[in-house]
Amino acid sequence: MENFEYYNPTRLIFGRGSIARLAEFLPTGQKVLLTYGGGSIMANGVHRQVREALAGYEVLEFGGIEANPEYSTLRKAVQICRQEDVDFLLAVGGGSVLDGTKFIAAARFFDDGDPWRMCVDDVVIERALPLASVLTLPATGSEANAGAVISHRELGQKRPFMSDLVRPKFSILDPETTFTLPTRQTINGIIDAFVHVVEQYVTYDVNTPLQDRQAEAILSTLVEEGPKVLADPRNYDARANIMWCATQALNGLIRCGAISDWGTHMIGHELTALWGLDHAQSLAVVLPGLWRHEKQRKRNKLLQYGERVWGIRDGDENARIEGTIAKTVAFFQSLGVKTNPADYDISEDGYAKVADRLAARGAILGEHDAIGRSEVISILKLCN
Amino acid sequence: MENFEYYNPTRLIFGRGSIARLAEFLPTGQKVLLTYGGGSIMANGVHRQVREALAGYEVLEFGGIEANPEYSTLRKAVQICRQEDVDFLLAVGGGSVLDGTKFIAAARFFDDGDPWRMCVDDVVIERALPLASVLTLPATGSEANAGAVISHRELGQKRPFMSDLVRPKFSILDPETTFTLPTRQTINGIIDAFVHVVEQYVTYDVNTPLQDRQAEAILSTLVEEGPKVLADPRNYDARANIMWCATQALNGLIRCGAISDWGTHMIGHELTALWGLDHAQSLAVVLPGLWRHEKQRKRNKLLQYGERVWGIRDGDENARIEGTIAKTVAFFQSLGVKTNPADYDISEDGYAKVADRLAARGAILGEHDAIGRSEVISILKLCN
Repeated sequence: MENFEYYNPTRLIFGRGSIARLAEFLPTGQKVLLTYGGGSIMANGVHRQVREALAGYEVLEFGGIEANPEYSTLRKAVQICRQEDVDFLLAVGGGSVLDGTKFIAAARFFDDGDPWRMCVDDVVIERALPLASVLTLPATGSEANAGAVISHRELGQKRPFMSDLVRPKFSILDPETTFTLPTRQTINGIIDAFVHVVEQYVTYDVNTPLQDRQAEAILSTLVEEGPKVLADPRNYDARANIMWCATQALNGLIRCGAISDWGTHMIGHELTALWGLDHAQSLAVVLPGLWRHEKQRKRNKLLQYGERVWGIRDGDENARIEGTIAKTVAFFQSLGVKTNPADYDISEDGYAKVADRLAARGAILGEHDAIGRSEVISILKLCN
Repeated sequence: MENFEYYNPTRLIFGRGSIARLAEFLPTGQKVLLTYGGGSIMANGVHRQVREALAGYEVLEFGGIEANPEYSTLRKAVQICRQEDVDFLLAVGGGSVLDGTKFIAAARFFDDGDPWRMCVDDVVIERALPLASVLTLPATGSEANAGAVISHRELGQKRPFMSDLVRPKFSILDPETTFTLPTRQTINGIIDAFVHVVEQYVTYDVNTPLQDRQAEAILSTLVEEGPKVLADPRNYDARANIMWCATQALNGLIRCGAISDWGTHMIGHELTALWGLDHAQSLAVVLPGLWRHEKQRKRNKLLQYGERVWGIRDGDENARIEGTIAKTVAFFQSLGVKTNPADYDISEDGYAKVADRLAARGAILGEHDAIGRSEVISILKLCN
C-alpha cells in the first residue's frame, strides 16, 4: 500500500425530507447566494423547498450555470459576491452547479490576475467563500470533494482545479429530488460514477485489497441499481443507492493508498471541448479503447474486475479481458449510451486533434506516464 | 435505505514514516499533553519518534492509561490539564489510550458534577480540548470516530459516551508501529474490527446494497490478511491492510442508512466488567450465541454474509446459517481466541448476573429491541 492522506470534512445529510433541515447547518445571519442551473429546480419543487427552508436568511440568486460550467458565466456571479458582500454560497443542482460554485467561491478573493489562472497555473488558493450544496443529480461526487472542472469556451479549454477550501461545509442529498431527472442525466450520472471508480481501481496492484473491494462494491451496486431506476424512475431505494454510490465514487476513499489513472477523463475532456459530448458520453467512448491499449499494464486488475464484478472466470487471460471490456461496453450501451466515436460524428481525422491538444500542454497520461501523443491516437483508434 | 447523517472530519495520515510529519498538523505554540498506556511505546521507539517530531512544542506526559481505561486514572490527567493549562491532547497508543484521552478532553471543561455523568446520564458535552492521535494498535476505530468506552471499577461499570467534540483533529497511522505488538493484541484487534462490522451489517435488510458490500469488503479482507500477520508480524502490507480495515470498521460509513445491532458489545462489556475478559474475547464469546438466538430475525443477512464472505451456498437455509456461524467461530479460534464461556471460567450461574446487570439499567438490546433479561440468558446458554 502507498502512503496517503485522507481528509473529508463535508457533513452529509441524506434522505427524504432533508432539505427542510437546511437551516440547522447554515450559520444564522449569513447573506446567501443560491446558485443553480437551467431552472429544473423551479419545475420539480426543489427551489420552493430550499427557499422555504431559508426563510430568515437574506438570499440572492444566481441561475443559468450551464453543464460544463462556463468561466464567463461564473465571472458574473463573482461580481455579485463582491458587490453584494455575500457570505455563503449554496449550490442547488448537480455537479456542474457545484463545480461552478466552487470556482465562484475561490475566485471571489482571487486578486492575482485572471481567476482562470486557478485552473491552468500552479496557483495555491488561499481563501474562499464557504459553500454548501443541495444535490439534485448524483454523478460527479463534487458534493463531497475538493475538486471542480471548469470550461472556458473562448479558449476551448476544460480544466480541473482543487482546493480543500472549496469543500462543501455540508451537502444535502435527498434522493426524491432525482425522481424527475431527464433519463439522459440519470444515465450520465451512473456512467460518470462508474468511470470515476475504475479510474482509481483498474490500474496496477500495490496490495490494497480493502480499497479494491470498496471499489468493486460501488461498481456492482451501480450495475445492479442502474436498470432499476430506468425501469422505475420513482424507485426511492434505487435512486438512494445510486446517489450514495456516486458520492462514494469520488470522495477520496477508494483511492487511499492505491494508484489512480485518470487518462480516460483527460482524453474525454478534450472530446467534450472539441465536439460537445456529454461528460459521461466522452468517458463511455474513451474507456474501452484505453483499456484495450493498456491491457498488458492493467492486466491483473482487469482480470480481477472481470471476475468480481462480471463473474468472468473461464477462458484464457486474453479472452477474459476481452470479455470484461465487452461486458463494460454492453453495460454502457444497455443504459442507452453510444460508445463509438463515429456515433458522435468524430472521424479518425479528429483523433490527431485530440492528441495535439494534450501534447501541446505536455500531458503524459496514465498511471505509468506512458500515454503520450501517439498513444492517444492509438487509443482512440481502439474505441468503438 | 434509512435517512442518515455522515460527518467525519478527522484527517488521516497513513503510512511508513508518518510520525515525523506530526508538526505539520499540530498548531504551533500549543502546550501538549502526550498520553499513553503501559509503556510499550518506550520499547518500540514510537515515543522517541513522537518526541523528536514534537521538538519545538512544550510537552507534558501522562502515562499509565490501562486497557479498558479507568475513570480514576483519567481524573488525574484531567487535573494536570487544568493545573497546567494544557492546550492540546496527543494520544499515543491504541483504542484504550484514545478513548481515555477523549474522556480527559471532555472532562477538562465539565463542571456539572462528577464527569462520570458524561457516561451514564444524558449529558450534552459542550466543550472539549482538541485532541489527535498516533495509533499503535488497530482495533477500535477510535482514531476516526466520536466515541469512547470508559470503565469505572469502583462502580463495576463500563460505558460508552459520544461527542463530535472529541473526534481527533488528525490521526497518524503508521503500520510499522504495529510490527512489535504482542500477538494477543494483534488478534484482539482483528476480532474487534470484525465484530464492529457485523454489528452494523448482520441485522435486517433495509435495501443498502453498497453499505452491505462495504461491510463485506472489510470482513473478507480481515479474513484474508489476519493469518498473514500472524505468520509474519513484519509483513508491512498485511499490517497496513488490517490497520485500514479497523479504521473503516467503525468510522460511521458502513452504518449509513443501515440498521445496527450492538447487542454483542453490550453483553460483552458486562463479561469484561465481571470477569475481566479482553474486549475482543468477550465479543468472540457472545457473537455466536447471539446469532444462534437471533437466527430468524437476522436470517437474510446471515445467509448473505455466509455466501459472500465464506462462500456458503449449498444446503437448506438452516444448514447454511449453522455453517456460517461455525465458520465464524472457526475463524476466531484459528486466531487463537477461545469462544466458550467455560474457557474463561464463566459458569451458567454467572449468566443471570450478566442479565440482571443489563436489566437493572433497563437495557433492551438488539435491532428489534427484543432482547431483554431472559433472552440474554438464553443467548449466553447458546454460546460455546
